[in-house]
Amino acid sequence: MKNLILASSSTIHGSGYLEYLQPQLKTLFEGVSEILFIPYARPSGISYDAYTKVASKGLSNLGVKVKGIHQCIDPKKGLNAAQAVFVGGGNTFVLVDTLQKLGLMSVLKKKIAAGMPYLGTSAGSNICGVSMQTTNDMPIVQPESFSTLGVIPFNLNAHFIVADKNSTHKGETRETRIKEFHVFNTVPVIGLQEGSWLQISGNQVKLEGTLNAFLFEQKRELQICKPNYIFKKKSL
Amino acid sequence: MKNLILASSSTIHGSGYLEYLQPQLKTLFEGVSEILFIPYARPSGISYDAYTKVASKGLSNLGVKVKGIHQCIDPKKGLNAAQAVFVGGGNTFVLVDTLQKLGLMSVLKKKIAAGMPYLGTSAGSNICGVSMQTTNDMPIVQPESFSTLGVIPFNLNAHFIVADKNSTHKGETRETRIKEFHVFNTVPVIGLQEGSWLQISGNQVKLEGTLNAFLFEQKRELQICKPNYIFKKKSL
Repeated sequence: MKNLILASSSTIHGSGYLEYLQPQLKTLFEGVSEILFIPYARPSGISYDAYTKVASKGLSNLGVKVKGIHQCIDPKKGLNAAQAVFVGGGNTFVLVDTLQKLGLMSVLKKKIAAGMPYLGTSAGSNICGVSMQTTNDMPIVQPESFSTLGVIPFNLNAHFIVADKNSTHKGETRETRIKEFHVFNTVPVIGLQEGSWLQISGNQVKLEGTLNAFLFEQKRELQICKPNYIFKKKSL
Repeated sequence: MKNLILASSSTIHGSGYLEYLQPQLKTLFEGVSEILFIPYARPSGISYDAYTKVASKGLSNLGVKVKGIHQCIDPKKGLNAAQAVFVGGGNTFVLVDTLQKLGLMSVLKKKIAAGMPYLGTSAGSNICGVSMQTTNDMPIVQPESFSTLGVIPFNLNAHFIVADKNSTHKGETRETRIKEFHVFNTVPVIGLQEGSWLQISGNQVKLEGTLNAFLFEQKRELQICKPNYIFKKKSL
């Protein structure tokens, strides 16, 4: 049974890395002695080693070992053998490109389907959607495909933010961007504010945290979803 | 001799579409009787016809005819015969994908090199850079290549905005995103604020408008450039 936490952000204002998620992580990683960390999204171009240290510190309360996948001689074998995985945030294009080049997408998908506990933050959550096409990131590298894991029948927009009505800036709002996505695509999109996460248990996709989320569907009105909302794909 | 205006934005706060650029457009399009408008970027998914009407209205003071490229039976022939071109803003991925699929990139490049007056706003400016990899847009479609016209030896970041230091939002700032670009790429990036534009005359790339621009180079300190600054690629 699938068992994932997909968080909008690793960090919320006024709190340390993964701090707000500690009780949930304890449950998610129960019985796990080692978590495999995937640092490929490299926020600000941080090295794999340095990023793994950040992740390790954020998970230190759990008393489990954290190993960076780059420390495995064969990343595919390392992933195949993993008890649990954490994919950190950063640039989604870089993350997807690296996973594709190393042939890890299908392995990750298989492991998640088999019930391996998975934590994603930001880019690490995005890749559990049908495609990475609702990322906010810059296309600083070009992956072969925008298709991602499809763990849930939705796309995610992490760090979702409601537009400031008083802004004088003419760049597009997040809402406009997602609506543009639906001119060309049918996949529903969940806009997750920082501090929200999705709890995936089998096929159930539940909104957690204290904030509302925003469900964008093609040719439907924007729906505001309260905490504990269970997302269902209408056409399924 | 190349002759282009590459604007950060079609519109600035408190002013109508293309309003702030009217004197410059009069000079750019002097002696032109018809401007070919390329509406492919489709902001908010607007139709080609509706977008061409918007452009036509914005250029109405010039007393020239505005024709949408989609009204040409053969877009390639239409572009080849064009006296002047305006490429409007919207989604850069959609714009690049459409230009590539219709085989128009090389034609546009040739026409610009031959001195055809060109106006770009936002996405229409982005495509004159070396690649579209510093766009702010969502990857709502997947173009075959991120390479663009390379009219200038820089990339552009349109709608550039300095981060609000008081923000509690944990999404990456524009500056962080461009720095991440330089972890993987060497092309210098010009961050153009709304209300700024580049005037390209032959090989000269000059900052116009009353605002500063921001020059990001790999392994160099961020440079703040004052109006009338002439950009030169240091490694050239």
